[in-house]
Amino acid sequence: MQNRTNEDMKKIKEILENNTALEHAITLLSWDLETEAPALAAEKISKTLGYLTGESYSMIINDEFKKLVYGINTEELSEIDRKIIEEVKKESFEKMEKIPKDEFQKYSELRVLSVRKWEEAKRKNDYSIFKDYLKQMIEFNKKFIKYRGYTGNPYNTLLDDYEPEAAVEELDKFFDKIKNELSPFIKKVTEKEKSENELAVIEKFKNMNFDIQKQEEFSKYLLDIIKFSFEKGVLKESEHPFTTEFSNKDVRITTHYYENNLLSSIYSTIHEGGHALYEQHIGDEVADTVLGGGVSMGIHESQSRIYENMFGRSIEFIEFIYPKMDEMFNLSEKGIGKKELYKLANEVERQFIRTESDELTYPIHILIRYELEKEIFGNLDEETDVDALAVKWADKYEEYLGIRPSTYTEGILQDVHWAEGLFGYFPSYALGTAYAAQIYDAINKKVNIKEEMKKGEFNQINEILKENIHKYGKMKTPKEIIKDMTGEDFDSRYYIDYLKEKFSEIYGLDK
Amino acid sequence: MQNRTNEDMKKIKEILENNTALEHAITLLSWDLETEAPALAAEKISKTLGYLTGESYSMIINDEFKKLVYGINTEELSEIDRKIIEEVKKESFEKMEKIPKDEFQKYSELRVLSVRKWEEAKRKNDYSIFKDYLKQMIEFNKKFIKYRGYTGNPYNTLLDDYEPEAAVEELDKFFDKIKNELSPFIKKVTEKEKSENELAVIEKFKNMNFDIQKQEEFSKYLLDIIKFSFEKGVLKESEHPFTTEFSNKDVRITTHYYENNLLSSIYSTIHEGGHALYEQHIGDEVADTVLGGGVSMGIHESQSRIYENMFGRSIEFIEFIYPKMDEMFNLSEKGIGKKELYKLANEVERQFIRTESDELTYPIHILIRYELEKEIFGNLDEETDVDALAVKWADKYEEYLGIRPSTYTEGILQDVHWAEGLFGYFPSYALGTAYAAQIYDAINKKVNIKEEMKKGEFNQINEILKENIHKYGKMKTPKEIIKDMTGEDFDSRYYIDYLKEKFSEIYGLDK
Repeated sequence: MQNRTNEDMKKIKEILENNTALEHAITLLSWDLETEAPALAAEKISKTLGYLTGESYSMIINDEFKKLVYGINTEELSEIDRKIIEEVKKESFEKMEKIPKDEFQKYSELRVLSVRKWEEAKRKNDYSIFKDYLKQMIEFNKKFIKYRGYTGNPYNTLLDDYEPEAAVEELDKFFDKIKNELSPFIKKVTEKEKSENELAVIEKFKNMNFDIQKQEEFSKYLLDIIKFSFEKGVLKESEHPFTTEFSNKDVRITTHYYENNLLSSIYSTIHEGGHALYEQHIGDEVADTVLGGGVSMGIHESQSRIYENMFGRSIEFIEFIYPKMDEMFNLSEKGIGKKELYKLANEVERQFIRTESDELTYPIHILIRYELEKEIFGNLDEETDVDALAVKWADKYEEYLGIRPSTYTEGILQDVHWAEGLFGYFPSYALGTAYAAQIYDAINKKVNIKEEMKKGEFNQINEILKENIHKYGKMKTPKEIIKDMTGEDFDSRYYIDYLKEKFSEIYGLDK
Repeated sequence: MQNRTNEDMKKIKEILENNTALEHAITLLSWDLETEAPALAAEKISKTLGYLTGESYSMIINDEFKKLVYGINTEELSEIDRKIIEEVKKESFEKMEKIPKDEFQKYSELRVLSVRKWEEAKRKNDYSIFKDYLKQMIEFNKKFIKYRGYTGNPYNTLLDDYEPEAAVEELDKFFDKIKNELSPFIKKVTEKEKSENELAVIEKFKNMNFDIQKQEEFSKYLLDIIKFSFEKGVLKESEHPFTTEFSNKDVRITTHYYENNLLSSIYSTIHEGGHALYEQHIGDEVADTVLGGGVSMGIHESQSRIYENMFGRSIEFIEFIYPKMDEMFNLSEKGIGKKELYKLANEVERQFIRTESDELTYPIHILIRYELEKEIFGNLDEETDVDALAVKWADKYEEYLGIRPSTYTEGILQDVHWAEGLFGYFPSYALGTAYAAQIYDAINKKVNIKEEMKKGEFNQINEILKENIHKYGKMKTPKEIIKDMTGEDFDSRYYIDYLKEKFSEIYGLDK
């Protein structure tokens, strides 16, 4: 029997390997579209993407391959091979197969159009250009939930795509804490009046100009510090910063440079750098299999946020990078010292745009999207009123942050996610940041993080994260990773406490 | 019957379209490897390339498709469809099919290794690292010639890949003229002594430093002048400048910037810009079919060389771009005026490296390679002695240019072509430049080129080239293009005369 199993597993791996080649090409085409391709190339690229996506679907979704996968005696397999079979069953046959190929392709085509319409609508601040596409994207996803089935709330099926095992029942508790415990605290912070001197520093910084080439150089310096490997990675520029991985030896990130906003490129770079380290550290034995890549959006986001916020925005790290920054950008000359820079990097402000928001108000932006998505997908048979949705968006900003967007661009049109069909994706941003706080605490038991930050020393920290999270790829579930690393289940306490402590200190408040 | 033909043609086109998608991905992976991918990504990229290349081969080389292609009644087809069938028969079934798939794949794998070994050998100036790979590449190509068959000289089969219908019998006559008519003239030019002032200008220019970012900006300015479309194209940097086309709406070129050599980036950019214009102007009706892309290496090179040399190195064009150059690089401050710049851009020098050679000595570099390749592939049954080949290389440089390379890097290792298996490719460089001279004459009958150059005006010239050459893609043969555009068959007279006239004037000599 063992022989038969070995032979079947060999066949399965061969097919998966060929599929990896197709995915490699698909990912490269998408990366190219975002970073490099000329404007008029988009049509041909989408066509090629359509063909390769169809090929990839057919290579996996067919009776012969299904028979192989379900027929194999998993008890005779090594641990990795067993996990590979589990992953294929889950991703290919429990998810993808249930959606008919023609609908899958129609949806892929719609998505390309939808993103273009969204771009135009956002640029023109004209919701009417996009709203019908949004509606179609929503209705497609409702149909897909029906095909795929669900447990508890229908929205759970979407949530599971980005954070396996996360469900409305659990997220409700998490967001309740954000609402009940964090909201009053945010109110206190944002209502605290600033001194004239503080206001002057903010004003001065806003009016400074930072050479783009120097920002680029500084971004590379930061990546060197956190030990991003340029032999296994690339840094580029794109409209919205993102990370793309082709293998653990080819991880590409982008950042964005604004002439009057140095902090934006710095923290985008460190954020994507955190994602990239995760991918570069994935073990060779799983890297090019279906177990390669980070295990979930939530765990991924925990890594980008821990580097960006908990390490990168700490007073110790800022003091460490300050001399180099000062040398390159003449900060002290303008009266911006280490302390001022720290405050600027941790400035709390109630504002409309999620991606520009600070560490403290960030989860409120997510809470709003979570509540809206829960409402949309909580009932599959009720048609979504996309006009009402835009109003609800504004209402919630008013309710939770006390500000009401006066344009669609500042409101419902701000994020690309829904245009791309990424429903259920947002919650993992907040969840990831909450994981990060708990993970921070676990690392800190092994090594004094503040001391390391003072030296700009990432070797030990990287090693701990690699050994406990990164190297596994998808070998462990997110819950297993958190439990094994921190010794307990996920607890949002760490996150709430971390935020209150940090910002109480900065703003001179009681927690 | 017509119905049956339409249906079959539809099937054929569908398969070719799918194959175009694979080729799009393959080309992008190669472009990425050369321009962007991190060092350690190469292994995975070659693997993906190997898989996709195999898929592309199998999609076309199979009995079913062959039956379709040979079964169709070409008399019932439109002109374009008939040409498509001809092209598929020639490229797929008369060439590719004759080489067994396993040898094709083995050869592809060897080529990746061979290029790496060549790089190392060139860097270390150690021929022993590469010579066995060179030998294998040569022997593979001899075997392929046997599989494919040949008419006249076996070398003709390779020549035909890059310049259809070019053959030893014809090229011998061409290169004889170069040898007999041009060589004595080159001798006169290179032996002419320079004045002290001329030597001083050269020395000063060599010692100037040109900011890389400014060179980049200037390259974009040049591409704007010649009407390269950035909506349909991209400019990047790479070790060796080259052009890659994905469609007529996505044409990518690279250049190379050297801090002490401004002319290198300028003329690399215009050269690749010429290739790119050809591709951007290909008609929509053929662009994404097998008839898309330039018709041959020779015709392609005629376009890059006409922009680079005949337009770009003309006194009128140099006078036109001078003010902008002076503004950006402070030339006049260093005593380099328009006339001096023109002389610098047309400096004739006997040197070892083909890619750095001037317009006048360039064909001698090609002549040498042509003679060596003719010797290698003239007899398929005699094993090539690669040690002797390196010596012959040096001998020929001594014979034709009066200089003998003292290192392999300056000699047989300088070009990547043989490492990549591109035998028969070199002659089309010289042939292309000769075409360019004849094409120049034909354009000049319709529009006064010198007057256009004085204004930096390319609209009319581009239009003439587009209408007579570019738009056809592979719809016409190279010979048809030359004949239809110039009213006569190819005649190397134009080339020889052009060179003698231009350089007699610059060097104050009788022709």
